[in-house]
Amino acid sequence: MKLYIGNKNYSSWSMRPWVLLKAFGIPFEEVKLRFDFTPGSTFYQALKPITPTGKVPVLVEDDGFAVWDTLAITEAIAEQFPEHAIWPLERQQRARARSLCAEMHAGFGKLRGLCPMNVDVDLRAVGAKLLSTEPGLHTDLARLDALWCEALAASGGPFLFGAFGATDAYFAPLVMRVTRYGLPVSAPAAAYVAAIEQHPAVAAWVKDAMAEQDFLDFEEPYRQQA
Amino acid sequence: MKLYIGNKNYSSWSMRPWVLLKAFGIPFEEVKLRFDFTPGSTFYQALKPITPTGKVPVLVEDDGFAVWDTLAITEAIAEQFPEHAIWPLERQQRARARSLCAEMHAGFGKLRGLCPMNVDVDLRAVGAKLLSTEPGLHTDLARLDALWCEALAASGGPFLFGAFGATDAYFAPLVMRVTRYGLPVSAPAAAYVAAIEQHPAVAAWVKDAMAEQDFLDFEEPYRQQA
Ligand SMILES: N[C@@H](CCC(=O)N[C@@H](CS)C(=O)NCC(=O)O)C(=O)O
Ligand SMILES: N[C@@H](CCC(=O)N[C@@H](CS)C(=O)NCC(=O)O)C(=O)O
Repeated sequence: MKLYIGNKNYSSWSMRPWVLLKAFGIPFEEVKLRFDFTPGSTFYQALKPITPTGKVPVLVEDDGFAVWDTLAITEAIAEQFPEHAIWPLERQQRARARSLCAEMHAGFGKLRGLCPMNVDVDLRAVGAKLLSTEPGLHTDLARLDALWCEALAASGGPFLFGAFGATDAYFAPLVMRVTRYGLPVSAPAAAYVAAIEQHPAVAAWVKDAMAEQDFLDFEEPYRQQA
Repeated sequence: MKLYIGNKNYSSWSMRPWVLLKAFGIPFEEVKLRFDFTPGSTFYQALKPITPTGKVPVLVEDDGFAVWDTLAITEAIAEQFPEHAIWPLERQQRARARSLCAEMHAGFGKLRGLCPMNVDVDLRAVGAKLLSTEPGLHTDLARLDALWCEALAASGGPFLFGAFGATDAYFAPLVMRVTRYGLPVSAPAAAYVAAIEQHPAVAAWVKDAMAEQDFLDFEEPYRQQA
């Protein structure tokens, strides 16, 4: 099984299935494609025979069958490895976990757009500035905080549904934004942020991202400012 | 089981689980909330105790448990009614179906933004104008056409994975755009469009939408033009 991913410093979507597979100790081969979104780039050339979307991540099974999009990849992993609690075992908790992931998948546009993932750099000054000018960022952050708190209160933590699972892998790149941009969250949310940062699979991604040192101008709207 | 939906003429997201449940003859109570996206509206008041997202559709189980977001609703229906082939029965086909739905869930932004669903009106003149000025619309339409054709070629049709299933319910609101805005598609895609329009569950939604006659200015950027 191969997982095609982008730059670890920037590719928030790639981080999700990578962290999920690592967290459960599921073996896979990582294929990293350097981000380059110019037409005809090596990035797009490499993806062309694999996925019609031209996007990472893509999970390629041993027979060459490709699964694209993080949500479909998560479901495929859950089906292929039923011995792991990828989703919560209880039916309604599982449904709730999927609601939260799906909400993330098509939502949090302001937070994602204004604060692109950049694992390597301290952007707290930028975060403070954005918070003072962007009401939409507050709305997204308030919803994220409430979403985390509600799930943590119901499960008792330390992760959203108790033990680490797909939903945590799904929100890990949001945690990266909270810490890198210094976005203020409530005490229970801050405890969750710390638990995610300390999880070995997340820490492994962060370590690789820090070692990468491959900075791309179009992914760096703020580094000068910081 | 209750399904909260919005105006049938406009609410493309609501159409998906409604059509899915109808297509499989799964009984549910429809609760229609008239669209009104002003803060504190009856729409938001009604949703407040049910979902923190303030969005439809929401599936509310008999014990009051709420599932929001179309993708999570689809998975919940598939789990609750394993006697129905909501997803394809074969594992890789099922994975592919989920890739296509997830791609739709976060994609096709130009097509969705420029051509909002409006079941009741003939917007072919608008569609022609948009096609002449919006290259992004062509890109989305080309991908949609290719996506349909590839699935139809693999399954043999008449629906994306043979028999009607979740993926077809998921793309039904896109079919509405193709016909209402007169967007040109290839011959196999046109056959699929016709099959969707003729499916009894889709036809039932369209009939209700036409009977609704509740026109909302903010959903009608084009009716004057048409
Ligand atoms: N909805 C997709 C999003 C994937 C995505 O946007 N990936 C980015 C990198 S993080 C990409 O490959 N972009 C290339 C492009 O947009 O051309 C998912 O959940 O997997
Ligand atoms: N990702 C959601 C989208 C739901 C959605 O955007 N629903 C619209 C109506 S079609 C809505 O309720 N909008 C109200 C709002 O945005 O405040 C899903 O798949 O269910």
